[in-house]
Amino acid sequence: MSTSLPPGSTIGILGGGQLGQMLSLAASRLGFRVHILAPEDNPPASRVSEHHVKTSYDDLDAVLEFANNVDVVTYEFENVPANTAKAAQAGALLYPGAEALRVAQDRLVEKTFISKDANVAVTPFENVTSVFDLKRACKKLGLPLVLKTRRFGYDGKGQIIIRNEEDIESAYSSMNGAPTIAEAFIPFKREVSVVAARNAKGEIATYPLIENVHKDHILHISSAPAKGEQSEAQAMARRILEALDYVGVMAVEFFEMDDGSLIVNEIAPRVHNSGHWTQDAGCVDQFELHIRAITGWPLGSTTPTHSVQMLNLIGDDADKWEAFAADPLAKIHLYGKSEARPGRKMGHINRKIN
Amino acid sequence: MSTSLPPGSTIGILGGGQLGQMLSLAASRLGFRVHILAPEDNPPASRVSEHHVKTSYDDLDAVLEFANNVDVVTYEFENVPANTAKAAQAGALLYPGAEALRVAQDRLVEKTFISKDANVAVTPFENVTSVFDLKRACKKLGLPLVLKTRRFGYDGKGQIIIRNEEDIESAYSSMNGAPTIAEAFIPFKREVSVVAARNAKGEIATYPLIENVHKDHILHISSAPAKGEQSEAQAMARRILEALDYVGVMAVEFFEMDDGSLIVNEIAPRVHNSGHWTQDAGCVDQFELHIRAITGWPLGSTTPTHSVQMLNLIGDDADKWEAFAADPLAKIHLYGKSEARPGRKMGHINRKIN
Repeated sequence: MSTSLPPGSTIGILGGGQLGQMLSLAASRLGFRVHILAPEDNPPASRVSEHHVKTSYDDLDAVLEFANNVDVVTYEFENVPANTAKAAQAGALLYPGAEALRVAQDRLVEKTFISKDANVAVTPFENVTSVFDLKRACKKLGLPLVLKTRRFGYDGKGQIIIRNEEDIESAYSSMNGAPTIAEAFIPFKREVSVVAARNAKGEIATYPLIENVHKDHILHISSAPAKGEQSEAQAMARRILEALDYVGVMAVEFFEMDDGSLIVNEIAPRVHNSGHWTQDAGCVDQFELHIRAITGWPLGSTTPTHSVQMLNLIGDDADKWEAFAADPLAKIHLYGKSEARPGRKMGHINRKIN
Repeated sequence: MSTSLPPGSTIGILGGGQLGQMLSLAASRLGFRVHILAPEDNPPASRVSEHHVKTSYDDLDAVLEFANNVDVVTYEFENVPANTAKAAQAGALLYPGAEALRVAQDRLVEKTFISKDANVAVTPFENVTSVFDLKRACKKLGLPLVLKTRRFGYDGKGQIIIRNEEDIESAYSSMNGAPTIAEAFIPFKREVSVVAARNAKGEIATYPLIENVHKDHILHISSAPAKGEQSEAQAMARRILEALDYVGVMAVEFFEMDDGSLIVNEIAPRVHNSGHWTQDAGCVDQFELHIRAITGWPLGSTTPTHSVQMLNLIGDDADKWEAFAADPLAKIHLYGKSEARPGRKMGHINRKIN
């Protein structure tokens, strides 16, 4: 008997943004039906899905009913509230599971788990619950140092660099009492990531190393396969997936040091912007890989047939669509968002590299 | 000023099957919104579209309202009734235009147009309105000969082969008085097709030659690029597109003779099953090409980066999805149809050929 979900089954996605949209497109291609739960009016994912439940993630009755109507629930963002995850699990399988959410939602829990349970190097860190803690962390980790909220940070939000001892108190008070973590400031050579997936049978598939360049704290360009040692980063990703008994796609972001050694910066328990290049690389893309993983399908090939460079279109970058459309090497992915606010991800271009 | 429709515009598709579904997926990828008009409950295309108007194509008020709410109307099947096309044109641009429909809906009009207006060789044919006509056609074209209804034939339906003179009367009466056309029986070496597109600026893009193998009158395998002379088939397709002042993707099906010469069998004013391989060939695929053509975008690259073989999954072929999913060279496309009736197209596999 197969333990896989057959085509025609229904996948529920929490979240309606571009990641949910591209997950939905991939699921449809495999013959699955897709339901979305998201609070927005007409979000990108709802336009390519069979059904949109428009409600808050805290509407636990609606989440349970949503889960009752699908075969498996997944999500496009790691800040799914714990009670929402619990309600989803009461109605359907939830992949990745609640433990992945618990770990990924809190930088302190995440770094502790990765270093202790997965035995993978992370940025040196200290728990900070007071100015006193922060002063001690500065001594221990040295300056400069990065103070971050433990929860809800993304794209550089919720973090501040402390360069001098006299900045400690103002930095701490700028966090408004939110639980924080101090992390050593890493003089990295470059930022790289690995996108990998594990299914419920324990099979793992890993894409090659990705090199990432950020601009204004937002991912700007990802290139893959990146030059450099692949196997260590892939092995570290595997250890994290296995330690979490994880099901689905995960992204692991690393700092690469001058000597080539790798330190995990953070993990994302979901499809990830640095994996968008896989859509036009000739292999199973990360969205389909996630759907295959959570439905128990064979994971398929994650070996690209050529190199790809992904360029994010932020804000009015997407206005140049006509020039991209005329570039024979560019594959266009636009999310259909109506308003191009500064810093908003509007689309991306995957360009084949010869 | 650009004459192209920008992302965020809305595309209306008449028809809700797998071709509409894959058009909708391609349009979404470019940031377009998609509305579907189709009479079925929950057809494949409606599951990946923003809006589904569930009504008959003959509901002209609804068609007009549908067209009023979109920027351009297109279709996935050539048998759009003339009045439906007219109602759509009253509310929006209709691409391909009504003339393409008029020509493609009637084998007699089509063959006359292709041979006379586009100056392209077609299967020798005779109009048949009586048994007397049919007898004369048998003399002129020789036996065997194929008697076909002028309208609404597909996948071998609405046609009969006449091998002996004594079969003429029964063959004619089997058509139940429908207008018919007699076509010479072509002893072809192989069947090939060309998929090409033209936008409103008159730009044309053409994929390489495709070799097609049918089974029980239904397309079974398409392979591309096919061996053999490309330029003559492509030039013939261009002449047809230009003669029709055509906008959109068109498929031209040919018989290739022993001496390599080509005769047009028929044209399809739409994306076509023999073009599905383009989805996994590293270039703009036929669905995106159609969307680009009807929105006035640059057409992009139609040059595949490698060879692909497309295998149709008919009826219960799609039950083998788990084996296909385990094949590293196979890309899976399932349409999400609930019932696998014999002869029904359930999906297809694109396999990279090394």
